[in-house]
Formats: sequence, structure tokens, C-alpha cells
Amino acid sequence: MTNFHLQSVPLEKAYRLITHGPTVLVSAQDQQDTDVMAAAWACALEFSPAKVTVVLDKSTKTRNIIENSGYFALQIPTLKQLNMVYYLGTQSLYDVPEKMAQSGVELFHFPDADIPVVQGCAAWILCELIPEPHNQQMHDLFIGKVIAAYSDDRVFRDGHWHYHEVDEEWKSIHHVAGGHFYTIGNAVSIDAPES
Amino acid sequence: MTNFHLQSVPLEKAYRLITHGPTVLVSAQDQQDTDVMAAAWACALEFSPAKVTVVLDKSTKTRNIIENSGYFALQIPTLKQLNMVYYLGTQSLYDVPEKMAQSGVELFHFPDADIPVVQGCAAWILCELIPEPHNQQMHDLFIGKVIAAYSDDRVFRDGHWHYHEVDEEWKSIHHVAGGHFYTIGNAVSIDAPES
Repeated sequence: MTNFHLQSVPLEKAYRLITHGPTVLVSAQDQQDTDVMAAAWACALEFSPAKVTVVLDKSTKTRNIIENSGYFALQIPTLKQLNMVYYLGTQSLYDVPEKMAQSGVELFHFPDADIPVVQGCAAWILCELIPEPHNQQMHDLFIGKVIAAYSDDRVFRDGHWHYHEVDEEWKSIHHVAGGHFYTIGNAVSIDAPES
Repeated sequence: MTNFHLQSVPLEKAYRLITHGPTVLVSAQDQQDTDVMAAAWACALEFSPAKVTVVLDKSTKTRNIIENSGYFALQIPTLKQLNMVYYLGTQSLYDVPEKMAQSGVELFHFPDADIPVVQGCAAWILCELIPEPHNQQMHDLFIGKVIAAYSDDRVFRDGHWHYHEVDEEWKSIHHVAGGHFYTIGNAVSIDAPES
């Protein structure tokens, strides 16, 4: 880990990393395989203990790996990574064994964590799967308990995103359909005390 | 309904209304009460039959009304509605009986639907609750089957958002924390066929 901009995010503020609704990358590894996929349907579920949901289709190898390993990471990619995100979200490791190499994704690990994570993202949320067979089978819905969270302090620090102060290439991307996305836009605030 | 810009959205494209992760308004009515709240944790769950999830805290009257009535609407507010959204999201009908009047919200109904919806939004997703006691009690997680969807064709038409062609006041808002939000930003596309 040679990026000196990485900083830990308190678990009780981890929800702020995805409450604005970005498309995320989901990464995981088991004893055989490592995979990363894109997911537009990820969401915070609880403040404390911090939890998240993510919808993982049965056609994805990442889902199978998470079922085997019990761990996954959600990470917030940036506009600079758009082509890689699209590739990771449209190619399956089941069909393309060389997917990881073809995508150009570079992985690393945070200290004391076996979950592979993606270089160059804006934030990372490490999760332990809370097994819920009904939700997983019936709804493709996976629930994770957040066990650690990190951000790149150039774009998220002091508990807040600073998207409005950085170059466009740092912006989060928000999927619509097919190859169509929006970046996050301008900061707007209510003149009221912070809750 | 005097807004001639309202158009029906095919159910199989309803997911596109929230896949970009906006903060939504949740509306519902039972035989006693009508309430509208804001929710940042809403997400698409399935393409077809279209389904959505939304996290509804036990402290909200809206949740109680949905449990009674079995129906709710998610709607995508615009930047123009920011102050109203914040008020609806921070005041509870349990504490403020005059919340609806104070908020300035104006409600209407789509044809053949008993669910009250909010004037001036960019899109509306009418849902029938799929009762899941475990998810509701354990996770505050509510699942809705989409029974109808509509948009204002000035900002969503032909299956796509046109945020990049409209005034800033039409933009979706994306909550971070407290009174802090981002608007949606610029359209970016991959040069690939649409899936």
C-alpha cells in the first residue's frame, strides 16, 4: 500500500460513502478465485452497526465467491475508472477467465484484511456477509456488516465528500442503463444544523 | 392532474428511475393518515417484475401507514424541492401533526391509484408492499413490487434521464449527511451497444 492518501473512516460514518447512490465495484476472493464486478444496486442499510445491501445476480462469479468466503468489499470508483467499471460490470469471470487481467484492475489489501480491493477508488467498505438465505435466493439481495472503511483523503475526509473541490476525474459515477452514466454534480446544503 | 408532461414509464424500465441513486420521497396513506418522508436509502431490486427496496425507520409514521395500507410510492424530487425534501425528512408526523401543511407539499393521485403522490417531482414509482416481516423488523427494509411508474417528460423520456439538457432546478438530489446533498452531474457514456 503506497498511497499515503488512504485514511480510515469511522464505522459510524461509513454510510456517508454510499448514501449519495454511486455505482460501486464489488470485490471478493475465495481459495480458488478472485473477482471484481460492478453493481449499481448497492445501498446503506444501517448506521450502527453499519450495514449495507448489494444486489448480486446469480450469473456472477463474484456472488459465488462471496457465498464461499463470507466476505466482500464495496468500493466507490471514479470517472477516471469508467471504462474499467463498465468492463468489470459486463464481463463474467465464468465466460472470460482472463477478465481480471483484461480489465486492467489493480488489487491490493488493507492491513489485517484478506479481501482484495481496487487501486484508485475513492473509498472502500470492507464487509462480512450476514448470511440470509431467503434474501440471497429469493431477491439476490446480500447484506454486509461493515468491518472497516477507508477513503482517499483527497476526495473524502473529515466525514464528508469533497467532490466539489476536485477534478472531474475524481467524481463518482451513477449508472442509468447500458453504457449510460451520470457523474455526481454540485454540493448543495440546507442552512440547518447537521444531524 | 393538470400536468400534461406526465407520461407512463414501462414497468421493465422503472429501475432506470432510481438506478442513479437519488434521494427519494416516500408517500403513503391509510384510512386515518397521509404522510410523506424523505429516504436516501432506496434502491432498485429487480428488473422484471420490477421491485425496489427502501429503508424505513421505526420512528416514522410513513412506515406505520405502509404497514397498514400495503402500498407506497417512491418519487424522485428535484433541486427545486430541496427545502421541502429536507423538512419532510427531518420532521415526523408523530411529533408535528401539521407536518403536511407546514411542508408545503402538494399531493395528487394517478388514475386508478389510491396512493398519494407529490406534485413537481421528476418521476413516480407506485408500489405494492411485498410483506417480509423479518426484513421489516430486523433491518427496517421494505420491498415493493412496482405496479405503475410515471415521469415528467421534460426530464425523463424514451427510457432515459435528460438531466444534462435541463435547468439545474430539475436535477436529482443525493444525500450525504445532515443538510448536505449533491445534485446529479454530467452525462457520460461508454462507446458500446446498450444492454
